[in-house]
Amino acid sequence: MLDNTEKQLLQQIAGISGFQPGSAFNLRANGSGVERHSTPQVTIRQKSDKPGIDIFVAPHTEGEQVHIPVIITESGVNDLVYNDFYIGEGAQVEIIAGCGIHNDGCDTSQHDGIHTFHIGKQAHVVYTEKHYGEGNGEGGRILNPTTNIYMEEGSYAQMDMSQIKGVDSTKRITYAKLGKDAKLVINEKLLTHGRQFAHSDVEVDLDGENSALQIVSRSVGKDDSVQVFHPIARGNNACRAHVQCDSILMGNAKISSIPEIAANHVDAQVVHEAAIGKINSDQLIKLQTFGLSEEEAEAVIVDGFLR
Amino acid sequence: MLDNTEKQLLQQIAGISGFQPGSAFNLRANGSGVERHSTPQVTIRQKSDKPGIDIFVAPHTEGEQVHIPVIITESGVNDLVYNDFYIGEGAQVEIIAGCGIHNDGCDTSQHDGIHTFHIGKQAHVVYTEKHYGEGNGEGGRILNPTTNIYMEEGSYAQMDMSQIKGVDSTKRITYAKLGKDAKLVINEKLLTHGRQFAHSDVEVDLDGENSALQIVSRSVGKDDSVQVFHPIARGNNACRAHVQCDSILMGNAKISSIPEIAANHVDAQVVHEAAIGKINSDQLIKLQTFGLSEEEAEAVIVDGFLR
Repeated sequence: MLDNTEKQLLQQIAGISGFQPGSAFNLRANGSGVERHSTPQVTIRQKSDKPGIDIFVAPHTEGEQVHIPVIITESGVNDLVYNDFYIGEGAQVEIIAGCGIHNDGCDTSQHDGIHTFHIGKQAHVVYTEKHYGEGNGEGGRILNPTTNIYMEEGSYAQMDMSQIKGVDSTKRITYAKLGKDAKLVINEKLLTHGRQFAHSDVEVDLDGENSALQIVSRSVGKDDSVQVFHPIARGNNACRAHVQCDSILMGNAKISSIPEIAANHVDAQVVHEAAIGKINSDQLIKLQTFGLSEEEAEAVIVDGFLR
Repeated sequence: MLDNTEKQLLQQIAGISGFQPGSAFNLRANGSGVERHSTPQVTIRQKSDKPGIDIFVAPHTEGEQVHIPVIITESGVNDLVYNDFYIGEGAQVEIIAGCGIHNDGCDTSQHDGIHTFHIGKQAHVVYTEKHYGEGNGEGGRILNPTTNIYMEEGSYAQMDMSQIKGVDSTKRITYAKLGKDAKLVINEKLLTHGRQFAHSDVEVDLDGENSALQIVSRSVGKDDSVQVFHPIARGNNACRAHVQCDSILMGNAKISSIPEIAANHVDAQVVHEAAIGKINSDQLIKLQTFGLSEEEAEAVIVDGFLR
């Protein structure tokens, strides 16, 4: 049922080549649902009031995977979707999302995904989202993900969000609110090239006592691309937050980082580090002495940095 | 001619107790010039169009000191002053500024100093500015310094700017533009207590090839005070910038840091680090085992941090 282009996109964004019969699954293609199935523990339901799905993970679910890939292979698609995740108390779940656009046409194809996570007490969520664009058309490939995360007492969430390549414009908005003893880890990876533009806002309120946040953002800007990062961490209670943004600059790319950290409680510990610069020349020379060309050496370093 | 209050203020802000006959000197008190003298190398001239002075340091001047303290001992003074510094090519000079307010009255006393530095080629400037407030009145003590720094090729400037204590409200604005091979070091130290408010904006354009910037900002927020830091470093050429902001939080104080770093050139290296948190408890316990009370131990750590 899926053609080769679609299978390749799925492989790029989700590491799968088709439906996953064993686990909860929802495939959205070119703006509408193609295939959906639930499991006894994970129910996926289409929303009745707007485009998108509700995903319910039963309390104390163990070791389930949920796949919710989105692919766009037509030119001129403008897709807006709302996905809500309700993760029951004590559930352990892995969610694999992602969006791939193959645009061979002249019109812009765009996907705006608005994801909201309601993470119950002591629940444990690992979320992976890959964004990828390809195709030879002049039409733009635009992905604007919005992610809201509400974390109850003692919950844990790890959000691995990456934009591999080929996305012409992205405006990424992430907001999280942490309850008591909640811990959030955000790993963001971003590569831009050509004349691409990427803007990433991440805003976290550490409201709960003993809550913890770790953000590691790594990016590479090539050619004439432009990146802007704006992470905000607010310690509103006894808590710990560490925000780290490292960027590699190549060609004529421009990268800015405008973090904001605030300690609004005497027992809040908030740390931010950011570094922007080109590839370490010692590393480049070392790899070239092993016989790699300059381009190959750069590729190895960039791959390692974003792995 | 100076009374004891005035002498003590001078001591606090400039480490002197009166006029300095050997060096160029300008004392401003309660909104008007009190005493001024130049040297063969350093000419201080009153502005004709607005309040303030022009300070001319002759090219290739060596080892001169310039003292330009400001004191306010009356309640209800609102003083705005423009000081322009013209540092000749290859000159080496040390400038000691500072402003002390002793306010025993009920009305607000305010000093807004707008300082502009034109630093010639290969010139070397060390600038020290201390801000201090005291007095038992309910009148506010407000200091709003604006500092502009234009640096020509190969020049060096070190700006040591501190707000020791007693300043109820401050809005600090610093802007610098660096030419080829210019190097700027900014050391900022800030202590707030009571219900004080401090806002510090520092904006630097590294325009020149091989220019360098180092900002080290250290602050302590006590009681119910609020501090906001907003440093901006823009690498517009091959350059290096390092911005470091460390803050200690005590009582109910609130501190935010909103740095902005941008690399607009592939050979720009820009690094930012910020940490906000309370005093390290290991250090506190160690000092207490030496017989210090908790308050004494805190004072020792705060003094060491801001020294």
